[in-house]
Amino acid sequence: MFAGIRNLVFGSRLPTAEEVHQRLNKVQALAIFSSDALSSVAYATEEILLVLVMAGTSALGFSLPISLVIVGLLAIVATSYNQTIHGYPSGGGAYIVAYDNLGIWPGLTAAAALLIDYVLTVAVSVTAGIAAITSAFPALFPFRSGLCLLAIVVIAWANLRGVRESGTLFAIPTYGFVILTLALIVVGLIRLVAGTLSPVSGQGVPPLEGGAQTLTLFLILRAFASGCAALTGVEAISNGIPAFRKPEADNAGKTLIAMAALLAPMFLGISFLAHSLAVVPAEYETVVSQIARQVFGKGPFYLALQVATTLILILAANTSFAGFPRLSAILAQDRYLPRQLTNLGDRLVFANGIIALAFLASVLVVLFGGRTHRLIPLYAVGVFLSFTLSQAGMVRHWRRQGGRGWRWKATVNGLGAGATGVVLLVILVTKFIHGAWIVALMIPCFIWVFRLIRRHYESVAQQLSLEGLSPEEWPGLASSRRHKVVVPVSAMHRGTLVALRFARTMSKDVCAVVVDVDGQVTARVREKWPEWGRDVPLVILESPYRSTVGPLLAYLAEMDQREPERGAAVVVLPEFVPARWWHHLLHNQTALLIKMVLTYRRGNTHKARVIIDVPYYLQH
Amino acid sequence: MFAGIRNLVFGSRLPTAEEVHQRLNKVQALAIFSSDALSSVAYATEEILLVLVMAGTSALGFSLPISLVIVGLLAIVATSYNQTIHGYPSGGGAYIVAYDNLGIWPGLTAAAALLIDYVLTVAVSVTAGIAAITSAFPALFPFRSGLCLLAIVVIAWANLRGVRESGTLFAIPTYGFVILTLALIVVGLIRLVAGTLSPVSGQGVPPLEGGAQTLTLFLILRAFASGCAALTGVEAISNGIPAFRKPEADNAGKTLIAMAALLAPMFLGISFLAHSLAVVPAEYETVVSQIARQVFGKGPFYLALQVATTLILILAANTSFAGFPRLSAILAQDRYLPRQLTNLGDRLVFANGIIALAFLASVLVVLFGGRTHRLIPLYAVGVFLSFTLSQAGMVRHWRRQGGRGWRWKATVNGLGAGATGVVLLVILVTKFIHGAWIVALMIPCFIWVFRLIRRHYESVAQQLSLEGLSPEEWPGLASSRRHKVVVPVSAMHRGTLVALRFARTMSKDVCAVVVDVDGQVTARVREKWPEWGRDVPLVILESPYRSTVGPLLAYLAEMDQREPERGAAVVVLPEFVPARWWHHLLHNQTALLIKMVLTYRRGNTHKARVIIDVPYYLQH
Repeated sequence: MFAGIRNLVFGSRLPTAEEVHQRLNKVQALAIFSSDALSSVAYATEEILLVLVMAGTSALGFSLPISLVIVGLLAIVATSYNQTIHGYPSGGGAYIVAYDNLGIWPGLTAAAALLIDYVLTVAVSVTAGIAAITSAFPALFPFRSGLCLLAIVVIAWANLRGVRESGTLFAIPTYGFVILTLALIVVGLIRLVAGTLSPVSGQGVPPLEGGAQTLTLFLILRAFASGCAALTGVEAISNGIPAFRKPEADNAGKTLIAMAALLAPMFLGISFLAHSLAVVPAEYETVVSQIARQVFGKGPFYLALQVATTLILILAANTSFAGFPRLSAILAQDRYLPRQLTNLGDRLVFANGIIALAFLASVLVVLFGGRTHRLIPLYAVGVFLSFTLSQAGMVRHWRRQGGRGWRWKATVNGLGAGATGVVLLVILVTKFIHGAWIVALMIPCFIWVFRLIRRHYESVAQQLSLEGLSPEEWPGLASSRRHKVVVPVSAMHRGTLVALRFARTMSKDVCAVVVDVDGQVTARVREKWPEWGRDVPLVILESPYRSTVGPLLAYLAEMDQREPERGAAVVVLPEFVPARWWHHLLHNQTALLIKMVLTYRRGNTHKARVIIDVPYYLQH
Repeated sequence: MFAGIRNLVFGSRLPTAEEVHQRLNKVQALAIFSSDALSSVAYATEEILLVLVMAGTSALGFSLPISLVIVGLLAIVATSYNQTIHGYPSGGGAYIVAYDNLGIWPGLTAAAALLIDYVLTVAVSVTAGIAAITSAFPALFPFRSGLCLLAIVVIAWANLRGVRESGTLFAIPTYGFVILTLALIVVGLIRLVAGTLSPVSGQGVPPLEGGAQTLTLFLILRAFASGCAALTGVEAISNGIPAFRKPEADNAGKTLIAMAALLAPMFLGISFLAHSLAVVPAEYETVVSQIARQVFGKGPFYLALQVATTLILILAANTSFAGFPRLSAILAQDRYLPRQLTNLGDRLVFANGIIALAFLASVLVVLFGGRTHRLIPLYAVGVFLSFTLSQAGMVRHWRRQGGRGWRWKATVNGLGAGATGVVLLVILVTKFIHGAWIVALMIPCFIWVFRLIRRHYESVAQQLSLEGLSPEEWPGLASSRRHKVVVPVSAMHRGTLVALRFARTMSKDVCAVVVDVDGQVTARVREKWPEWGRDVPLVILESPYRSTVGPLLAYLAEMDQREPERGAAVVVLPEFVPARWWHHLLHNQTALLIKMVLTYRRGNTHKARVIIDVPYYLQH
């Protein structure tokens, strides 16, 4: 029955052999890998305005030059990553590039930054996607946190089933969003020139509180830092090169350029329209929604854009559900994370990674109340840290590799590393107290945990290693037939007899032990023993505090001390197994408790105790 | 460390030998056993008024005749229970009396009614006790549910530590409450006669919504039914006879009469004052608080009465914390409840029963929003059902016993049974839709569960019984040295070798099994096997779906079928045990999973599998 439900919800199990990789053409690849980057158009302009508006609406004019600088930065980063693609044609994630070229610490730093970044991508994309919906349907605004959680659950569920990255299916929302956004910009510009567009403000949209601060360079830099969220996701293509058709690197490079070429005008266009229409960021409606409402009117085009925005943002969240589990599996394989993260689930996905990501993103959504702009100060830190490390790694890579024109290549990547490094500093400084400190604190914590886990696995491997043992000694050791066997008896019943019989087949040195918790029960065992126990000696242990496990442990420890030369005692546990699950509630779980304590609590003697479980099945 | 915290919170463990019983004199016993009954004075009058006020304030005059009828009922019940005390000098709870004399079904009905009643006593007493506090400090009113839960936790904690029923300590709040209430009544009457008391109403206390209904006989009966809450707890003395000094029954009987003699004037006095002062029940202040404020003024006497009211109500709740665990232990001993309820904890108390009661009462408080009057419709049903059954049982008891004057005794108890039976009907009918239906539904459910549990224990006892076996066959069965032993191997390490060595000491017929989840690991085992595994055959199991447990189970089942005459295979599990608890998070719990599945999931063959756990301790 359980299997039936599992198959219904998650699909039937897939055999390992079915793991195949589908190759993508450039149009499909653009749809799959660029949703994260392109979708940031939906919130990047708004985040710039949200900072500027603190110095009053007059400061909003700075959004345009800030957007231009960000587009310039985009050009540098895209060029730099285009080189990474050619340098690491098998896939050059920041972790791999930094680890390979800069060493373990930069590698782990990049890994920590990336993991945090994936979680934030899910949280930011989902909250922004839900904001597009609540802009169109304000009645849903109070339920935004719930809707965000629902979206995360649905995405996680789809990934647990195993969404094949179906290029065709994914293309619809991505290209729909691109076309509708470009249409919005074109129509908006035409209507602006024609003079039929009036400013948005004063239409009953309540402006956010603001105007309290003076416009300083710091504030402008902070607005720039917020807008840098537009660059998130640019690195996605360089991670996914093996999915491209041949020649992979060339196709990936062209796709990257195409993505940058789409992202730049979309972002600039939205920023320009927001400026021209004097849009003021509002609590209940996104900036893009305000622009679209003004340009298209509240008709089918407006609604289509809002829906496409939500969908592409959910796709963007979905890319993290591919990236996070894959990166954690790589880290787990390198023994920096628990090895359970490498387990391929029934549907050939890294199920534990998917569940972990969904959980962490949900926590973030709840903590930050489902509000995009509260999450933004945390967002770009990880992204730009991994940009910087990855580009710096490429500089080293070209230098090591040498070859024709390595200096030029190293210079391009060096420029990328420098630019993103400076931006990282700007982000850290301007947004530190607004939340960037959380990430700055988390990254060293992550690295510390990585190291801790790695050290544990290394220690285990060393302790378990056969190195230094000679096969002649092992396992040919004289098979000592003289185990000391102890059978704890709770009462005289068939289960006890079966266990006793098994113990006697194992060794001639068996003794039975009764812990005297209930005098009547003990008396009954003692009375029946001569008949049923025969020659097996019966030991009765006092239990002044009514504990079963304590006296048993003490007895075993004492026995170990008495005969230190003998191996530790073997404990044979009679256990009757009820027929139905709820029957377990009606029995003391003494056998389970004894097993747990004997296995996991070490005695002073540090002798391993062998525990033998002899079940007796009840029928009804 | 864990033991240290436990000792600090709950006190150090007590040996079984320390279980002693302290005998009480009548003054102490009255304090301990009558808190439940006497404390109902704090809310009984108010509950009558709350019903009557629905027909407008003019209907409140009926409270006086209703109170008189209830006092008459009290006289009948007390007389009847006085006889129970002499008939069952070793303690005559309703369950025992009904079971003994009327048989199993009435006995279980009484048990169910009593259990429900104990839970309700806690909930009603605690909510009423907190209401006394919030009447004096209205600012606390919004936190009443939280305060109730806090009170329950504190009482439960005190009982888990094991409150000795210290007569002296308990006497202070009980006699304090009695003296202050009697003082209130006397001062009130004097001031009434002197004409210095004005009515309460019109002092800004907002009256509850009311006057909507017409005054019908049904409404008057419902008011009577609510007032019957005053009788709850009258039976407590008959349960506790063994705690009295000799002659126990005589002393207990006299204490019962004294309690009734105190309860009657207190209840009547409060009802009379409420009537004379034209008190209207209010949401934020209890009736007793209104009277006391008027009679004493808002001074130290008023405050002392409120505090004493809270304390005696908390004592009343505390009596349930003695009664509920004791009754559930008796029921568990009779195998009608899970046997864990008979476990005496470290402090010689029935810890599981205390925790269960605290949990159930907390659920009630939360569900009913910490309001006494919402709980009252549920309350009296159980009480009067157990009254009726217990008194009816006594009629049968006297008849069976015969002897001098049995007819007279039977008539007295018969009158008690008849009167409480009629009241039970009145309560059920008038309060059915207001909540009595919940109890009417719960009681049969409880009985059904009692029977279910009993049947399970009987079936287990029968299946495990040695009846019908002959000691000659057991356990002297030819000790078959030819166990088939299977060792699941996940990788070649020291833990594997230790397990393998143990397996070889057990039997000559050992085989090792590798489930091929990871090709590389399997290849490594296969490569090292000739050197380390020696003559033990290595079986490699395919696992197309990457499951470890599935193929192993299938292999064992197939082996059972191949050699049906042989007993089921013995499985030897190598398990390395990490040194720290958090290390467990870093390892697949495969050994644990295999143990669980092998023990609890039965194969088709229904052969019990013996599971041998060979731990290998890691040091750091």
